[in-house]
Amino acid sequence: MTGTDSAGNGAAELQTTMTALGKAARSAAAVLANASSEAKDKALREAATALRDRRAELLQANAQDVAAAEERDLRAALVDRLKLDDSRVAAMASGLEEVAAMADPIGTVVDQWERPNGLQISRVRTPLGVIGIIYESRPNVTADAGGLCLKSGNAAVLRGGSESFHSSGLIGACLHDGLRAAGLPEAAVQLLPTTDRAAVGVMLTMSDYIDIIVPRGGKGLIERVQNESKIPVIAHLDGICHVYVDGAADLEMARKIAVNAKMRRVSICGAAETLLVDKRVHNSHLEPIVHDLLEAGCEVRGDPAAQAIDPRVAQATEEDWETEYLDSIISVRVVDGVDGAIDHIGEHGSHHTDSIITEDAAVADHFLSKVDSAIVLWNASTQFADGGEFGMGAEIGISTGKLHARGPVGAEQLTSYKYVVRGDGQVRP
Amino acid sequence: MTGTDSAGNGAAELQTTMTALGKAARSAAAVLANASSEAKDKALREAATALRDRRAELLQANAQDVAAAEERDLRAALVDRLKLDDSRVAAMASGLEEVAAMADPIGTVVDQWERPNGLQISRVRTPLGVIGIIYESRPNVTADAGGLCLKSGNAAVLRGGSESFHSSGLIGACLHDGLRAAGLPEAAVQLLPTTDRAAVGVMLTMSDYIDIIVPRGGKGLIERVQNESKIPVIAHLDGICHVYVDGAADLEMARKIAVNAKMRRVSICGAAETLLVDKRVHNSHLEPIVHDLLEAGCEVRGDPAAQAIDPRVAQATEEDWETEYLDSIISVRVVDGVDGAIDHIGEHGSHHTDSIITEDAAVADHFLSKVDSAIVLWNASTQFADGGEFGMGAEIGISTGKLHARGPVGAEQLTSYKYVVRGDGQVRP
Repeated sequence: MTGTDSAGNGAAELQTTMTALGKAARSAAAVLANASSEAKDKALREAATALRDRRAELLQANAQDVAAAEERDLRAALVDRLKLDDSRVAAMASGLEEVAAMADPIGTVVDQWERPNGLQISRVRTPLGVIGIIYESRPNVTADAGGLCLKSGNAAVLRGGSESFHSSGLIGACLHDGLRAAGLPEAAVQLLPTTDRAAVGVMLTMSDYIDIIVPRGGKGLIERVQNESKIPVIAHLDGICHVYVDGAADLEMARKIAVNAKMRRVSICGAAETLLVDKRVHNSHLEPIVHDLLEAGCEVRGDPAAQAIDPRVAQATEEDWETEYLDSIISVRVVDGVDGAIDHIGEHGSHHTDSIITEDAAVADHFLSKVDSAIVLWNASTQFADGGEFGMGAEIGISTGKLHARGPVGAEQLTSYKYVVRGDGQVRP
Repeated sequence: MTGTDSAGNGAAELQTTMTALGKAARSAAAVLANASSEAKDKALREAATALRDRRAELLQANAQDVAAAEERDLRAALVDRLKLDDSRVAAMASGLEEVAAMADPIGTVVDQWERPNGLQISRVRTPLGVIGIIYESRPNVTADAGGLCLKSGNAAVLRGGSESFHSSGLIGACLHDGLRAAGLPEAAVQLLPTTDRAAVGVMLTMSDYIDIIVPRGGKGLIERVQNESKIPVIAHLDGICHVYVDGAADLEMARKIAVNAKMRRVSICGAAETLLVDKRVHNSHLEPIVHDLLEAGCEVRGDPAAQAIDPRVAQATEEDWETEYLDSIISVRVVDGVDGAIDHIGEHGSHHTDSIITEDAAVADHFLSKVDSAIVLWNASTQFADGGEFGMGAEIGISTGKLHARGPVGAEQLTSYKYVVRGDGQVRP
């Protein structure tokens, strides 16, 4: 995976390169589908070792990317996401080891039963095949995504952001070190050898070679992928997450969760964007929570009830209810009980993650069953919306769609299944 | 659901009609998602009763369709698929009752675990939303598909073949009788009110209102749907199914299964199209099996070894290995053991259903794990590839894709899931 750029490539040459890459991925997938758990886990552990051993080389490649980004005047937040240091490299390496330590999803019997005619039917987990992942600046996605695909017996075709080209290339080389050490084909994890944007367009048409596309990045990327792809897409759109403070909420718990859900990290998709408060506790709960948020440095935009609390609360517009701020801003609204909250979330939410704070179990159950989101929580922060926090080891994203995978996408979500039927000569009457 | 045709409709009018239908489906889906098992099962049983009570009316509507088909000189096989009689109506009604008697997939806890921080996570089955089904002449698909969608808490938008318009309309009316009796919205099952082919095109763009499209019919239909759809598609492509007679096969079992797999019904997707015989039993097994097939009225196209057996065996061309005959024709080839069979199936198969006949358990396990098909069988006929035979009550098709659903698509395959997380005040550190 050298850093050749396709500036000199014509469209035909790009197509040839991509087809060769697709064929190599398909062949590697066939090997990987039948690889032992031991071989796959060895590859993951050896890749982790390579990341640690080649840390100096990796930080040098990363410095090249960071310098180029600073030269191009990229936003500071973007440059920060791009930057690797000792602790980030260590986190990548231990992430791969955590994935190695998890149970192998492949070959697991998910379900089995016997038919009256004696046929023994079992449903067994299998890999999907080849997974294409298109992502932006964070180079660690190369390790996370490559590792999860490998664990689940799938070949990966990775297209990272052009700004992390050298860093990702070196992480890819470490994954190849691991694959080689385990006797598995290097083509199990391939990075596009070019930063040419046209390569993404070609990738999205390669339905003969890629079985599923997972875009990971901003809205623009995801919309482009969903519009152009000839391959099924598992995507995460908006994360407009809500915290609803019910009339039966414990005030201290509500304060703690509301501030954590919004402010722990504002840029992740599980960060709360809207706080809904039951009108029954409008007097007792709304004011302390709004003050906590203001004191934590959060901008608050509210309905008239919230505005009445503090002059610093700005007026929320209709647009605020449907905005994923990914910033220290929250919209606040008083609603008529749990059904008011359910209605607001149904109308304005994004089916991602929503939480209710209440001591009333019946009200909680009503919320948990009626809110149509990938993750619904009771008395816990929306910031737990994360594959690692769910115990999946890692994730390559959170799906807001309902097909195939919903919520955090870990190794198990990158699998399919087959039916294995054992008989003793049965024919169908 | 009256028989108005859209001959007079402009494109704008069609769009308006379809959007209204989509909105009604979305609203009905929200009600259905929270409907009790009792209500859904009552609707299914009452629909079965309506089918029986309105049998005369249904047969009359069907006679209208059949007369029109005969006038248009449709193929006899097509007219036969279209025709309803007392026993077919009875089968539809009891099919709905069987679906009613099955366990409700919705609300089932598929998995649950506790995190070290005390969060209780469970994965709970939910409906998908709105399912669009596009099918051809068999009017019974209206009952099967409508019933499975209802059971799984999904709204259905059905587009049957124009030739079964009146029959399907009446079956739809019976489903509405059931929904009304159970207090559920009629829009839970909607049939397109027009036979205009353009309506299919509009339907395939309605990604705001339809969550998944299931085409059921010939290759032409499925290719059109896959090419045009802006909505994810679960489809069944070819069913090029194989029977492999291993060197360690019991001859009598192999004869019985080979003939059943091919000849029981030649027009279903699980019918075998190719027989592979291990060269080790070329002398002992090949001849009796080929003679059985010839005697059963099957045309045999073989490689030189098969041709040497009987002058009636024609020469197989490369094309034969990749042809889904759906007719009394089979291709026959001698292969080099189980790996020869696995290679042939990998190269020429369609990932649908493949069977091995052998007394050697290790060889069987090798075949069952290496053949990458939705259904793999050991010592059983490929004709068991059917949701009913699997115990799913009914199916709306067999998926040859690996995403979301693979193999028979029954009620459970028409579901998604959500994560329900219960805490006691946890915030993320």
